[in-house]
Amino acid sequence: MPSTTPAPGAPDDVRRIACTGAGVIGGGWAAHFLARGYDVTAWDPASDAERKLRRLVAAAWPALEQTGPAAGASPDRLTVAPTLAEAVADADFVQESAPEELELKRSLLAQLAAATRPGVVIASSTSGYPMTDMQTGAAGPDAACRMVVGHPFNPPYLIPLVEVVGGERTDPAAVEWAARFYGLAGKSVITMDRELPGFLANRLQEALWREALHMVASGEATVADIDASITEGPGLRWAFMGPCLTFALAGGEGGMAHMLDHFGPSLKSPWTRLAAPELDRALRDAMVDGCAAAAGGRTYADLVAERDQGVIDVLRATGRLGGPR
Amino acid sequence: MPSTTPAPGAPDDVRRIACTGAGVIGGGWAAHFLARGYDVTAWDPASDAERKLRRLVAAAWPALEQTGPAAGASPDRLTVAPTLAEAVADADFVQESAPEELELKRSLLAQLAAATRPGVVIASSTSGYPMTDMQTGAAGPDAACRMVVGHPFNPPYLIPLVEVVGGERTDPAAVEWAARFYGLAGKSVITMDRELPGFLANRLQEALWREALHMVASGEATVADIDASITEGPGLRWAFMGPCLTFALAGGEGGMAHMLDHFGPSLKSPWTRLAAPELDRALRDAMVDGCAAAAGGRTYADLVAERDQGVIDVLRATGRLGGPR
Repeated sequence: MPSTTPAPGAPDDVRRIACTGAGVIGGGWAAHFLARGYDVTAWDPASDAERKLRRLVAAAWPALEQTGPAAGASPDRLTVAPTLAEAVADADFVQESAPEELELKRSLLAQLAAATRPGVVIASSTSGYPMTDMQTGAAGPDAACRMVVGHPFNPPYLIPLVEVVGGERTDPAAVEWAARFYGLAGKSVITMDRELPGFLANRLQEALWREALHMVASGEATVADIDASITEGPGLRWAFMGPCLTFALAGGEGGMAHMLDHFGPSLKSPWTRLAAPELDRALRDAMVDGCAAAAGGRTYADLVAERDQGVIDVLRATGRLGGPR
Repeated sequence: MPSTTPAPGAPDDVRRIACTGAGVIGGGWAAHFLARGYDVTAWDPASDAERKLRRLVAAAWPALEQTGPAAGASPDRLTVAPTLAEAVADADFVQESAPEELELKRSLLAQLAAATRPGVVIASSTSGYPMTDMQTGAAGPDAACRMVVGHPFNPPYLIPLVEVVGGERTDPAAVEWAARFYGLAGKSVITMDRELPGFLANRLQEALWREALHMVASGEATVADIDASITEGPGLRWAFMGPCLTFALAGGEGGMAHMLDHFGPSLKSPWTRLAAPELDRALRDAMVDGCAAAAGGRTYADLVAERDQGVIDVLRATGRLGGPR
């Protein structure tokens, strides 16, 4: 079936990126793309945006130099345009990072569709809105179809993850294009096949965060203790081994199956305010099979060695070998 | 008021530690204490416990050698006793790591009190039971008073954190003794002043875990995506900067106050299945004041630089500098 949607250039051919919104996240994206060797044009409605943006990029650059910037990368390749239209007119890709206000996002995305070249993919940094809701303001056959969510983590120039998902009117080809582009641009991409509030990582992070807020609100813990309980505890594992595989190791040689059998009852305990799902056969199997797949042939002994080396390396990297006395 | 409770030796004078229960956690504790230069006597009712324990310690030792073991530390200083009583008769401290079964724990703790020297502190590795409930089986004036929770993370020989808390019948001096001892033994101690299901870190970890289980149960995410969303995302920060301070930075120069003002509304959104507490003035102030205290004079720019360097160091330590292509 011939497509009536103009094709964008290939992800490999992107040279100039527009960052609309130049705050903490938008500016962070600009720094990231500059370090990966792109030309970046930024726009932000605030009067002092250019000053703050250039300061953010300058502050980030020493860090970026440690990560091995692309050949020819330079903060000098940042331009700040006076209008939105001028910022995106020549863009091969747009990263939108305006404040989290739905009407603002809707309007902005529609304007971006109108002001970009045909087929150019427009990614929104939104944490909070489904693209389906944000793309409703876009009219015409070549607008909503090329809008995706490209959700980063702070700071975008260092945390690899970006979550990519389209809305109901998004062409799946645009989602694939964005995923491929972000990979080329040095990100670690998770593509989602459905819209989910908070996507993936923020759902997990938010559960932890809300429990933390409850604990402070109830006088159960201080901010300092909450933070230390993570950085001196489970946080050390999560830097390189996710929660599922980590817990599979808690089950010893028996893996996730044994862990769920042994700790299954604790799912009903009031360890936390979130009620667990029913640990039925389907969930148990999904977790056991998923962990087996994630282990990918590595034995329990392999994973223990990997975990232990990872913890040691992270402890050393964060200045803690030798321990508190 | 003269104390009728015999005083234990000083934490500094501990030479021999008994580890009762030699599974994943008990064996991990044994490895930890051996690496810190103590003599360890272990006991476990399983017939093959000694074989498995020595194998665990041997597998852990190369890792421990990287962490700078104490002078004279050696896996050869591990003895496995044939009975519980023999294991603890000469112990200066006992770490109990039996399976998580309340009646078993109660009975075991009572036996430990009877078989140890007067005043010796007995710490339980329990994740799931309040000491108040576990110490009910202990009779006599010098039993329950010296029982504390000393809750570790896996593996105990690498993850620094131990959470210490007493039960209703625990002498506060025993809690302080245990906290001081664990610090001397190389742990990072959080002492709690009240019993809380899951203590601190497991409450936070369990919230994240239950959301993850929901996501798998509902087909929202795979095990692989859940794990990657953390290790490529927020997990990188939590290795060295806790969730509160991390989120304070999300607020930019305005810190936690701005973060709560900007993202406060998202607390009511369905980003995760755990309902947030009401963000009232008291909670807002506790979070803002707590983060200010945690920042301890470091400016936003200082914290950004620290976070960025930490992320770079963790990325490098876990083999990820250069990024995925």
